[in-house]
Amino acid sequence: MERRIVKPSKTEIDVFFYPKSIAVVGASKRPGSIGRAIVENLLESYKGAIYPVNPKYDEILGLKAYPNLSSLPEPPELVVVAVRAEATPPIVEEAGRVGAKGVIVVSGGFAESGEKGRMLQEQLKAIIKRYGMRLIGPNCIGVYNALSGVDTFFLPKDRMKRPHKGPIAIISQSGAFLASIMDWAADEGIGISKAVNFGNKIDVDEVDLLEYFAEDEHIKVIVMYLESINPGRGRAFIEAARRLTEAGKSVVVLKAGRTSAGAAAAASHTAALAGDYAVYRAAFKQARVIEVDEPIKLFDMAKALARLTPPRGPRVGIVTNAGGPGVIAADRLAELGLVVPRFTEELKARLRQFFPERVAVGNPVDLTGDATPEDFEKAMKIVIESDEVDMLMVLALMQPPTMHERIADIIADVAWRHRDKPVVTVTIGSEYAKRMREYLENRGIPVYDFPDKAANALYALYRCSTCRWGARPCGETYESLGAVVPGDAKEKAERIVEEAVKRGGGKLLEHEAFAVLEAYGLPVPRYCLARDSSEAASCLERVGTPAVAKVVSPDVIHKSDVGGVILGIKSVEEAERAFNEISRSLAAHKPDARLVGVLYQQMVPEGLEVIVGSRRDQTFGPVLLFGLGGVLVEAIRDVSIRVAPIEPCEALDMVNDIRGRRLLEGYRGMPPRDKRALAGVILKIARLMLDIPQVRELDLNPVMSYERGAAIADARIIV
Amino acid sequence: MERRIVKPSKTEIDVFFYPKSIAVVGASKRPGSIGRAIVENLLESYKGAIYPVNPKYDEILGLKAYPNLSSLPEPPELVVVAVRAEATPPIVEEAGRVGAKGVIVVSGGFAESGEKGRMLQEQLKAIIKRYGMRLIGPNCIGVYNALSGVDTFFLPKDRMKRPHKGPIAIISQSGAFLASIMDWAADEGIGISKAVNFGNKIDVDEVDLLEYFAEDEHIKVIVMYLESINPGRGRAFIEAARRLTEAGKSVVVLKAGRTSAGAAAAASHTAALAGDYAVYRAAFKQARVIEVDEPIKLFDMAKALARLTPPRGPRVGIVTNAGGPGVIAADRLAELGLVVPRFTEELKARLRQFFPERVAVGNPVDLTGDATPEDFEKAMKIVIESDEVDMLMVLALMQPPTMHERIADIIADVAWRHRDKPVVTVTIGSEYAKRMREYLENRGIPVYDFPDKAANALYALYRCSTCRWGARPCGETYESLGAVVPGDAKEKAERIVEEAVKRGGGKLLEHEAFAVLEAYGLPVPRYCLARDSSEAASCLERVGTPAVAKVVSPDVIHKSDVGGVILGIKSVEEAERAFNEISRSLAAHKPDARLVGVLYQQMVPEGLEVIVGSRRDQTFGPVLLFGLGGVLVEAIRDVSIRVAPIEPCEALDMVNDIRGRRLLEGYRGMPPRDKRALAGVILKIARLMLDIPQVRELDLNPVMSYERGAAIADARIIV
Repeated sequence: MERRIVKPSKTEIDVFFYPKSIAVVGASKRPGSIGRAIVENLLESYKGAIYPVNPKYDEILGLKAYPNLSSLPEPPELVVVAVRAEATPPIVEEAGRVGAKGVIVVSGGFAESGEKGRMLQEQLKAIIKRYGMRLIGPNCIGVYNALSGVDTFFLPKDRMKRPHKGPIAIISQSGAFLASIMDWAADEGIGISKAVNFGNKIDVDEVDLLEYFAEDEHIKVIVMYLESINPGRGRAFIEAARRLTEAGKSVVVLKAGRTSAGAAAAASHTAALAGDYAVYRAAFKQARVIEVDEPIKLFDMAKALARLTPPRGPRVGIVTNAGGPGVIAADRLAELGLVVPRFTEELKARLRQFFPERVAVGNPVDLTGDATPEDFEKAMKIVIESDEVDMLMVLALMQPPTMHERIADIIADVAWRHRDKPVVTVTIGSEYAKRMREYLENRGIPVYDFPDKAANALYALYRCSTCRWGARPCGETYESLGAVVPGDAKEKAERIVEEAVKRGGGKLLEHEAFAVLEAYGLPVPRYCLARDSSEAASCLERVGTPAVAKVVSPDVIHKSDVGGVILGIKSVEEAERAFNEISRSLAAHKPDARLVGVLYQQMVPEGLEVIVGSRRDQTFGPVLLFGLGGVLVEAIRDVSIRVAPIEPCEALDMVNDIRGRRLLEGYRGMPPRDKRALAGVILKIARLMLDIPQVRELDLNPVMSYERGAAIADARIIV
Repeated sequence: MERRIVKPSKTEIDVFFYPKSIAVVGASKRPGSIGRAIVENLLESYKGAIYPVNPKYDEILGLKAYPNLSSLPEPPELVVVAVRAEATPPIVEEAGRVGAKGVIVVSGGFAESGEKGRMLQEQLKAIIKRYGMRLIGPNCIGVYNALSGVDTFFLPKDRMKRPHKGPIAIISQSGAFLASIMDWAADEGIGISKAVNFGNKIDVDEVDLLEYFAEDEHIKVIVMYLESINPGRGRAFIEAARRLTEAGKSVVVLKAGRTSAGAAAAASHTAALAGDYAVYRAAFKQARVIEVDEPIKLFDMAKALARLTPPRGPRVGIVTNAGGPGVIAADRLAELGLVVPRFTEELKARLRQFFPERVAVGNPVDLTGDATPEDFEKAMKIVIESDEVDMLMVLALMQPPTMHERIADIIADVAWRHRDKPVVTVTIGSEYAKRMREYLENRGIPVYDFPDKAANALYALYRCSTCRWGARPCGETYESLGAVVPGDAKEKAERIVEEAVKRGGGKLLEHEAFAVLEAYGLPVPRYCLARDSSEAASCLERVGTPAVAKVVSPDVIHKSDVGGVILGIKSVEEAERAFNEISRSLAAHKPDARLVGVLYQQMVPEGLEVIVGSRRDQTFGPVLLFGLGGVLVEAIRDVSIRVAPIEPCEALDMVNDIRGRRLLEGYRGMPPRDKRALAGVILKIARLMLDIPQVRELDLNPVMSYERGAAIADARIIV
């Protein structure tokens, strides 16, 4: 009897983190073996029942060993498999038979190492599907949970130190990255409670884990190393991440395989393609996930996100005893889009009461190298109590002898009293600086060794605040953007598309494409298909003048190449002549091309040319694109991208997200354009792509953008 | 008698680094005082004569103290002044009188703290000018030279550790930054021999120091923290930096004050404006200085630049036992513009001989977590011996128990045998990783704790190679770019400009601007000024048809606003009518505007519109700008910038440096444009700006770019 994999629930994934019993198949006594390391590590930390399984032994590390899973005294909840790849399928089968709920296959030798491995991997998939079991792996280091002691990371503790417990969870597509980061984090004093590496992720993936961590009260920040999301799981990823942020948690991700060199490297190591990075970027933005480009930034941000409350705004006050580092901080904050406001005269005057002329009382407040901890205290209090900043960065360099360790108490105290405004600290240097850093970190203040790192942390907090409290509402709705789709749109469009699919798919004919768009209430010009020249007159009457005539043929890709476009038709005679010219020209250029007819369409007035497009991504589904049109601008590739579905405000964001935005806002005497109309077009295209999965690609190019409204001048739809 | 400051020579600056004697004015016994710290530090490290000067003491720290500089037994070579600002001028005066060669004023309270301080600073300037002395400061921590023991950094050694000696020098505009970085570098094992902070730099500046370090055989890399270059010193900076790179040394710079927030912060702390960052960026590029945006990158790069030979090309091979970090490395390398080449089948086959299927033998070579040091040895050798890479990045994660410290010997050995190809190493983690790192660093291999840092280092080495061996020659000359300027150009242009200056300056009249450009052989259209309508006919004859008529008036800024432009003139009648229309229209729009005449000019054919411009920067002199024209593209601000003078290849680089370059290369059926002609225009404009300092601003907009040649359609010159 075949059972379907049920949608993951907390309970299903729970078995990997809090199992009542664990069987280790491939357990071993051999020093340096994976099977021994797993049992050893579990013995040290895990409190449930451990069942080593290996027919070669009666006993392993003091535990009774069993010849197979069937001979265990109870069905194990979790089975860890550490045998060579070929031996894996029967063991997983047995695990299913005895009623295990979860399996972690640490063994390598699957899809990442060739065709044979790929087949073994397919077998595993089939087996777990049959038994309704969940599986992590293969080709992974598995699961670490400091809270329950589950630890399948088969690395000895002198090589990979375990970090102390804390509100950070790590999801990593690379086992080596995870192992080395755990070791590094232990040294850096970063608290991590749960960590997972799922390797080839044939079952449990990042989406399952994000959903699971959403419910986990111990976890506040999820740090991810991601190479690719499995095909079709993109939307679920976005939704899971959003739910997490709505629950007050944050996700920080390092996407590897951003470049083609990186993608090629990733493909060879986890056997998955990296996908189009531009789409990932858009998806992260929509998912409210904070993306970084360097591993260390993951933790610079996580440290602050785990401890501090997000700020209410982007304004950062800086208090420093070091001018240069203050400038570095101000630059980086501004480059990240945060604000380093100039203080009001009033605030400056309040500061000036306490400080002599050599102290700069602007922002940064530069107390200079003579500052004492008490000077910091005064300045910090005045700045944080003002309503001119939302966050505070304190640069407390410990090299001057006027500084003293009590600065740590002062910072901790001010931060605690004003915990609605996040405070981060920077101190650069060696022993003395490090001592202060440890002390402050123990009091819950994130400390950084360079100002740019602290700026990254504040940036993350700010980003996190905008996602936690939702994107700023833009006041627009489907109605206000003219994006309400007629009730019968889908049905009408489907009919046309199915027709085209039946005849083999490819590009919709011109009038079909317009009809599909028209069904969705999109601003297509008036159009009319003349099947022979006698229909030209009535067509012209319908579309009005001036009109454009276009060849309609399933065999023509570029209409102008076959003389298939005639502009500026103003009379019936010209319309009829156009029909004949186009059919003659088609016959001349492409004798075997079938002529369906000539499409007459209303010539839309000139406007600012923009492009709206969509294509289907294997991971994320329909991807939407907006950009400026015209060859000059196309050459610069200025586009914004989102994954469908999108909200009205996201559509408007998309329009605003291009570099050439100024052109839409009225530039050098040109009028401002109707951005809302463009957002409406994008929203309807999103709907269309979601409604009709047969549509593979869609391009509206150009769309004319006017002071009021917009008009689609040409469209291409591939099914 | 007034003496002029002589151009800095090695000898003049040498006194700050290798003085025979040092007097410390403001020397003190008081614990915690600056005057004591300086004497204490000098006593510990400096071997020359130390003369504490303070009338309050007879003896300081066992040294005889003197009441003033005049009472010393010999004239001190170097005088360090650590008294309050007001007391400084007479002391510097006395230093000059007794014949000191250099003065370091560490005291603050000068321009950075208000008007009074600014006046004191001016006094100092006048004094050193009078005595021909050199001065570092004021408001600085001065000079550190590990080789001679000079150390005016007045910070106790338990607060600021001194790093070990090494081939790196630091020039920092911020004392606090320098002090904390020294402390940090000591802990990181980074070798630093010389370091200078010059604070308000009223005399010795970064240019003097770059010139000095060019001659210093102990220094291989100069690390700079820079907020601003003094007015007028930009060109000297570029030249000094270039000479350094030509001498096989490298300069890495962190420019602070990139943003307006940063610039404001910088202005308040060193009393200098940060200047236009876009111009600095261009200047760094031309100076072959490597710019970074984070302090830590300065040293990640310096470490590699100090130890390794630059590579011959951009290709990086990666050998790793960790898939994920390999992908991170590949991404970052590619993002930095380096190449992670796909290996040839032949190279892969050579690797495959030694490794099983689970090992990916592409680039990266992923040996996986089971790799032994011997596996690394084989893979590294095969890759580095191939001619498919120019550099090697080794990612040796030490968490797997198969790894062993002997990997360090292996890496060091391979790197030594192939020292024409730089090798950097990455190992992430805690104690075990750090142990290996120290061991390798001691053997001269730069080791990094994350792959992106190692990628930055390789990037710097590659950048350094292109500057050391000169920019790749492009095969163009002034002749081939049509950029040879007629011998009488300057003289002719000067005459016109002086005329305009005499009448008060401002915008040159249309025909004057064309005449100036024409003198330089620039492609202006035929033009002719008609002073009254009777001259219209002969003018039209001279310029030909179709022609354009433009109002010429010193009182009109935007010609079209006063109806002052008429296009498409084809006959004498139209030309005469145009004159009358324009004069009528001017009178109507601007009754008090003076009409000089109407300029008739040949209507240049349509082409791709570009802009060439220049303006004078207070630091760097003439700055050149090139960009695409037309409102659509202008809105995107796609321009490239350089500081004049430039070489022919740099002019061509400028043309290629814009995002919309594809438009110049023939895009979507448009023809490719004559880039060489554009480079020629830029070169001539550079010449013009250097020749005629009265020209403040110059804009050629648009310049029409054709398949062959270019034509200036309109020009604006401000004097």
